[in-house]
Amino acid sequence: MKATVLHGARDIRLDDVPHPVLSTGGDAIVRVVAACVCGSDLWPYRGITPTTEPKRIGHEFVGIVEEVGADVAKIRVGDFVIAPFYDCDMTCANCLNGVSTSCLNGGWWGADDRSGAFADAGQGEFVRVPHADGSLVATPGQPDDALVPSLLALSDVMGTGHHAAVSAGVTAGSSVVVVGDGAVGLCAIIAAKRLGATRIVAMSRHADRQALAVEFGATDVVAERGAEGIERIKAMFDGIGADCVLECVGTQESMDQAIRSARPGGMVGYVGVPNGGAELPIRLLFGTNVGVNGGVASVRNYIEELLPEVLAGTLNPGRVFDLELPLSEVAEAYAAMDERRAVKVLLRP
Amino acid sequence: MKATVLHGARDIRLDDVPHPVLSTGGDAIVRVVAACVCGSDLWPYRGITPTTEPKRIGHEFVGIVEEVGADVAKIRVGDFVIAPFYDCDMTCANCLNGVSTSCLNGGWWGADDRSGAFADAGQGEFVRVPHADGSLVATPGQPDDALVPSLLALSDVMGTGHHAAVSAGVTAGSSVVVVGDGAVGLCAIIAAKRLGATRIVAMSRHADRQALAVEFGATDVVAERGAEGIERIKAMFDGIGADCVLECVGTQESMDQAIRSARPGGMVGYVGVPNGGAELPIRLLFGTNVGVNGGVASVRNYIEELLPEVLAGTLNPGRVFDLELPLSEVAEAYAAMDERRAVKVLLRP
Repeated sequence: MKATVLHGARDIRLDDVPHPVLSTGGDAIVRVVAACVCGSDLWPYRGITPTTEPKRIGHEFVGIVEEVGADVAKIRVGDFVIAPFYDCDMTCANCLNGVSTSCLNGGWWGADDRSGAFADAGQGEFVRVPHADGSLVATPGQPDDALVPSLLALSDVMGTGHHAAVSAGVTAGSSVVVVGDGAVGLCAIIAAKRLGATRIVAMSRHADRQALAVEFGATDVVAERGAEGIERIKAMFDGIGADCVLECVGTQESMDQAIRSARPGGMVGYVGVPNGGAELPIRLLFGTNVGVNGGVASVRNYIEELLPEVLAGTLNPGRVFDLELPLSEVAEAYAAMDERRAVKVLLRP
Repeated sequence: MKATVLHGARDIRLDDVPHPVLSTGGDAIVRVVAACVCGSDLWPYRGITPTTEPKRIGHEFVGIVEEVGADVAKIRVGDFVIAPFYDCDMTCANCLNGVSTSCLNGGWWGADDRSGAFADAGQGEFVRVPHADGSLVATPGQPDDALVPSLLALSDVMGTGHHAAVSAGVTAGSSVVVVGDGAVGLCAIIAAKRLGATRIVAMSRHADRQALAVEFGATDVVAERGAEGIERIKAMFDGIGADCVLECVGTQESMDQAIRSARPGGMVGYVGVPNGGAELPIRLLFGTNVGVNGGVASVRNYIEELLPEVLAGTLNPGRVFDLELPLSEVAEAYAAMDERRAVKVLLRP
C-alpha cells in the first residue's frame, strides 16, 4: 500500500509500505477515507525536530473498517469510523478519568504499540488500529461525504480546541481570548462559543483567518501582539484582562501572551505543543492567581459529545480545511501549510 | 505604642513606634486582640529575604475597632473584626471577581498604602486599616475568647488552606494529597475534608503534626519524600496518583513532589510562596495534563463563608496554634517557630 514517509527536512514522500496485518485480536484494519496534515507535523517537516531515519507520519484519519480481530466486540467491518490522534483502550484508569492521551495501554500512530506490533500512521491507505473498540468511534450509518471534513476534525483539531476551552473553564458568560489562528485556534473559537462565552477575542493578523474566526463566533479581533496586544486585551476587559485565555500555538511568546492577557484569578487553557526553552513563570502566576491547565488533548473522550452536532450539521469544524488534495500530492500539502498558503489540508487516498 | 520590628536576620524586637492616626476617611484604627507569626515571616527572619532597614512585620490579626474615618459605613467602633493578611476595598473589579489579593486599591500591612499613609503591620498594639469597610469583617457581637485562635486563623492560614483546596478543584469524592504539614498544610486538610474529599493523604514526618493531620481529617499519612514519596502516593491511587494535590510549602522540591503526585488530568492547588529558582515544567505538565492553579490566597473573599462555622464551633483551625505568648515575647515566638518547637505561635498584646 501507499503511505506517507518523512525522510528528512522538507523531504516527504508517498512510499510503498507493507499492507497492515491483524496481530493482537483487539485490533482492526481501517481503509483511510480522509486524512490531513497537522500543524505539529510541520515541526519534523521543517527539521526543527530532526528526522534520523525515514518515519511514517500523520495522526488524523477517518475511514471504513476492513477487518477486525477476534476480540473486537463493538466495531464492525464496514463501519465508518473516526480515530483520535492516538490509540487508547478506554478501559484503563486514565481513560476512565477522561484522560485517554495518558492511556496505560495505548500508543501513537506510526510507532510500535505495546504488543510490539506496528501501528500505521494516518497519512496512508490503511491503518492497523491496536485497540479498535477503544480508539474508534463508529458513526450511525454511512455519513454523507460532505460531512467528512468535520468528522475528520474530530480526530484532532476540534477536540483539541474544545480541550483548551474546557481546561480554561469556559462557561456561560465567560470572556475569552484565543491566542493562535491556526486550525486549533479557530476550533477553540467554535468551542468557546458553543460553551456559552459571550465575548471571544481572536488574536490574528491574517485577513482570511480573521474572517473565519468571526464566522465561528469571535466578537473581536486583535491583530497586535506582545506588550501592545496585552494592553489592548486589558483595555477591553476592565483594565484587568479576560476570564479565560486559550493558548493554541505552543511558543514561549504565545504562552507569555496568554498568561498576561488573563485577568487575576483567570485561567489559561493550553494545547499548543510546547516548543522553546521557557518553563512557566511561577512567581507571576502566584502573584496574579492565573492558573494554567491543559496539555495533550484527550480528544477521544470528547468525540461522543461532539459527534451528534457534526452529524446534525450544527457544528462545522471542517470549515478549517481550505485545501483538499489527493494523497499522491502529499508533498504539496505539506508545502502549502509550511508556506502558509493553506490553514489545513485534507488528503484523500 | 509597641510594635514588632525586624532589624536584621534573627534580630526581632518590640519597639516603640508612633500611634496610628486616621488620615483618609475610609480607614479605621484597630486595637489588636491577637496576632501571630506566619511561616512566610521566617523568610526575612532567617535572612533568606534580606532586611536592608528596620521593618514592621506581621500580617495576621484580629481586634477591636477603636476609631473609624468619616467615610466608613459598615464597620463601627467597638466591633470585633478579622483582618485578612492584606488590605483591600472589596469594590474593585478584582475583588468582585473573588481575587481581593489583586485589589486595585489595596496594599500590604507594614507598608505605605496607595494614599501614601502608612498601614501598620499586625504584630503590634494598633493597626491603621486603610480600607476598613473592605478589609474588615465584624463578628456578630463579641466572640467568646476561646474562639479567638480560630477567628485569627481566618486572617490567613485557614483561608489559604481553603484556597489551595478550591484552586485544586477539591469536591465530593476527591482523592487529595497535601504537601506540607505546617499551619497552612494542616488547614488545607480541614478544607479538603470540609469540601467532601473521601481520601486525604498528609505528607508529614513529624509525629505531632501527623496526629493533628489525622484529627483534622487525614485518612493516610506518608512520611517519605521525593521519588519514594511519589511512588507511595501512586501506589495508593491506582498506580496513577491523586485527583488533587495541595502544595503548601513553596520550595522547588515540594512543587515537584506535588506535580508528580497528581494523576494525569489532576490539579495542583498551590499556595506556598515560591522560593527557589525553578519555574514550572511545562513539558511534564503538558504531557500529563496536570494543571497548576492557585497563588496568593484571597482569604478576604472566604471569610463570610467560613466564619459561621467557626462561630458555631464546627470549624476549629485555631488548633494549629500550639504556643501562645505575650507580644512582649515576640522574639521567643519567632525562635520557637524557626527552631520548629512550635507549629504556629499566637501573640497577645
